[in-house]
Amino acid sequence: MKTEIIAVGTELLLGQIANTNAQFLSSELAAAGFHVYHHTAVGDNSQRLRSVMEHAASRSDCIILTGGLGPTKDDLTKETAAEYIGTTLAYHAESLEAIIEHYKKTGKEMSENNKKQALVIEGSFVLPNDKGMAPGMIACHDGKVWMLLPGPPSEMKHMFQTYGLPKLLETGRREPVKSRVLRFFGIGESMLETKIADLIEHQSNPTIAPLAGEHEVTLRLSARFSIDAEAKKALDEAEKKILERVGEFYYGHGESTLEAMLLESLIQSSATVSAAESLTGGWFGKALTDAAGASKAFSGSAVVYNNEMKQRMLGVKPETLEQFGAVSPECAAEMAEGIRSLTGTSYGISFTGAAGPDSDGSAAPGTVYVGIASSAGTKVLSLQLAGSRSRIRALTVKHGMFALWQMVKKGQ
Amino acid sequence: MKTEIIAVGTELLLGQIANTNAQFLSSELAAAGFHVYHHTAVGDNSQRLRSVMEHAASRSDCIILTGGLGPTKDDLTKETAAEYIGTTLAYHAESLEAIIEHYKKTGKEMSENNKKQALVIEGSFVLPNDKGMAPGMIACHDGKVWMLLPGPPSEMKHMFQTYGLPKLLETGRREPVKSRVLRFFGIGESMLETKIADLIEHQSNPTIAPLAGEHEVTLRLSARFSIDAEAKKALDEAEKKILERVGEFYYGHGESTLEAMLLESLIQSSATVSAAESLTGGWFGKALTDAAGASKAFSGSAVVYNNEMKQRMLGVKPETLEQFGAVSPECAAEMAEGIRSLTGTSYGISFTGAAGPDSDGSAAPGTVYVGIASSAGTKVLSLQLAGSRSRIRALTVKHGMFALWQMVKKGQ
Repeated sequence: MKTEIIAVGTELLLGQIANTNAQFLSSELAAAGFHVYHHTAVGDNSQRLRSVMEHAASRSDCIILTGGLGPTKDDLTKETAAEYIGTTLAYHAESLEAIIEHYKKTGKEMSENNKKQALVIEGSFVLPNDKGMAPGMIACHDGKVWMLLPGPPSEMKHMFQTYGLPKLLETGRREPVKSRVLRFFGIGESMLETKIADLIEHQSNPTIAPLAGEHEVTLRLSARFSIDAEAKKALDEAEKKILERVGEFYYGHGESTLEAMLLESLIQSSATVSAAESLTGGWFGKALTDAAGASKAFSGSAVVYNNEMKQRMLGVKPETLEQFGAVSPECAAEMAEGIRSLTGTSYGISFTGAAGPDSDGSAAPGTVYVGIASSAGTKVLSLQLAGSRSRIRALTVKHGMFALWQMVKKGQ
Repeated sequence: MKTEIIAVGTELLLGQIANTNAQFLSSELAAAGFHVYHHTAVGDNSQRLRSVMEHAASRSDCIILTGGLGPTKDDLTKETAAEYIGTTLAYHAESLEAIIEHYKKTGKEMSENNKKQALVIEGSFVLPNDKGMAPGMIACHDGKVWMLLPGPPSEMKHMFQTYGLPKLLETGRREPVKSRVLRFFGIGESMLETKIADLIEHQSNPTIAPLAGEHEVTLRLSARFSIDAEAKKALDEAEKKILERVGEFYYGHGESTLEAMLLESLIQSSATVSAAESLTGGWFGKALTDAAGASKAFSGSAVVYNNEMKQRMLGVKPETLEQFGAVSPECAAEMAEGIRSLTGTSYGISFTGAAGPDSDGSAAPGTVYVGIASSAGTKVLSLQLAGSRSRIRALTVKHGMFALWQMVKKGQ
């Protein structure tokens, strides 16, 4: 079933908010096997909305509208839809009661325009709003399904998942799709694609689609089979073929993050880590503690943003700083060893380098060293990164996490 | 000039990413006086893109496309645009050189498909890509302006601001608008709106529009005057009225960030800061070092993610931890004093608290203490924050920055 999403609201066209509703709905619809081919955003203008609706009806089977169901004058989605369908609006008794009840409960005065929220398209299925006041609705017209949802994301999401999607699934006009996302680090999108070009080309079920993420690349495998076990088998086979080529860059499925994979592997190995951060200013620790439970494996960091701190907190030798500078493999090694011995963790990881944009004369921006100290000794990773200050710092943290994760996995 | 934005990429229709590019462009275009009436997102499919382009040309004067300029086979925006316009693609020598140079510099192997990025529409203005490889372009056809921008937000934003928008402004078909954004912290959107409701209501030039941002609120003032000095005067007057009401929560204009304001005030006062981070795991240091030049005022942090580290690195007393726990004003004070004496900075700031989602039994999630030690003594801020782990941590860092910024400004 060809589906499209229309977001209604001038705030979108002014750039005051991003259309995250379309993202949420698309992700839910894709997972449920619906094909979404278009997103549109249009302002609170009846004439333009009408024209967008007509265009949508000419190319899609199911049109989902978000926004414009509220109490104010510029909320006009259902009015426009009713007119387009050739019907009128009528009060929905339960919704009206719920609105009056809400104002009683909160002790606030109800302005007259709030009642307008209880109006629905005559003959439509009403979708209750458990998180707010304006109900949603599904109207069928001319063989097309029209779903109207409220704009506030918390109301819209709950309504869609609880009432809207189940209703759509009843229509049965969809192809079941199973998909799987593979995540890679340390390889560019074009190189990844080149290495598996023949697989992408010759693979039609599942299809393989690369996507460049934030300093990472993902592959989405999408399989269409009526039997779940067959889809799984096809996905497993495609994944195996892909990983034979580029497995060294692979780190996880789905919504996995490098920090979560690292944390998990540390906890599984009963290992701990501490960090010595210069260039990254605390980013490694921040990222590792984004997830709850990080204290099981992460003890802490010394953020040493100048040479004095490197000496005072980590015992980096003055001779090392003088002879090689702070941006050097030697300094990275001493930092990693220094934090490991200070904290007594299994691993000590260090980050030093020049992030730019300006050079201090000693090291070119993008020159980065990551040290990892463990009972097996100390390794230093030399990196030459390009791009903005922010990109260099973000990539540095990811390189460190990826390298440490590989060591922990191998029990090094 | 009627403008619309078309985002190209199947990842949008699958809900893998939100269309933040349309938000950014809309906000920039609105500020520059262009009217945006439609956003569309369409997949990597030449036929559907062509159809969307035709529809856009039927209703808009200027069409901005984002995405699909990359090296892979499913990148087909410029191919489709060239075909639509009735012309061909040709190599742009500078862009090709820059791509080859990039690979030389990073020492990576260049796959053949990367060259494709240097192809541009014959006869178009080329927009250089300073942050990536694929150039953008502006093509004029049939009285319409077509601008093609890359999909990755960092590349797109820089290209649009540096090369795209100035070119559009040359067309002159717009209403001059001067706008100013005021940034607030520590006050909610509805409270801010309530406090200045009468100003918002009665003010038509400039208009005043509140917008909730990430843990902050902004007000956008937009003035329409043909003479710049008049616009400035009206903006100044409106700002003065607003700050009389809510000035205590105001911290900066435009793209200012709390971290940049704090860094600037520290440097101006020749003051320095170091941090003791538990709850925030390094986030304060990470945020402060996002900007270049942070080393002038930031020495470093001790990230002390367990009690042992708090004692070992910062000299927090075992009795304090036993009697009051790590999440206590007493611990926050000792952490702030500990890092200040360890580093010898003017200020020591500390962060301790429970971010959740689970409680360890000793402190409820959202209980947060921020300590600030200076030559004038030690202050502890008690916070009770609500929301997700990520929100609690982000707000903690911002509260600390805002409080420290106010102290530094007052010379405390």
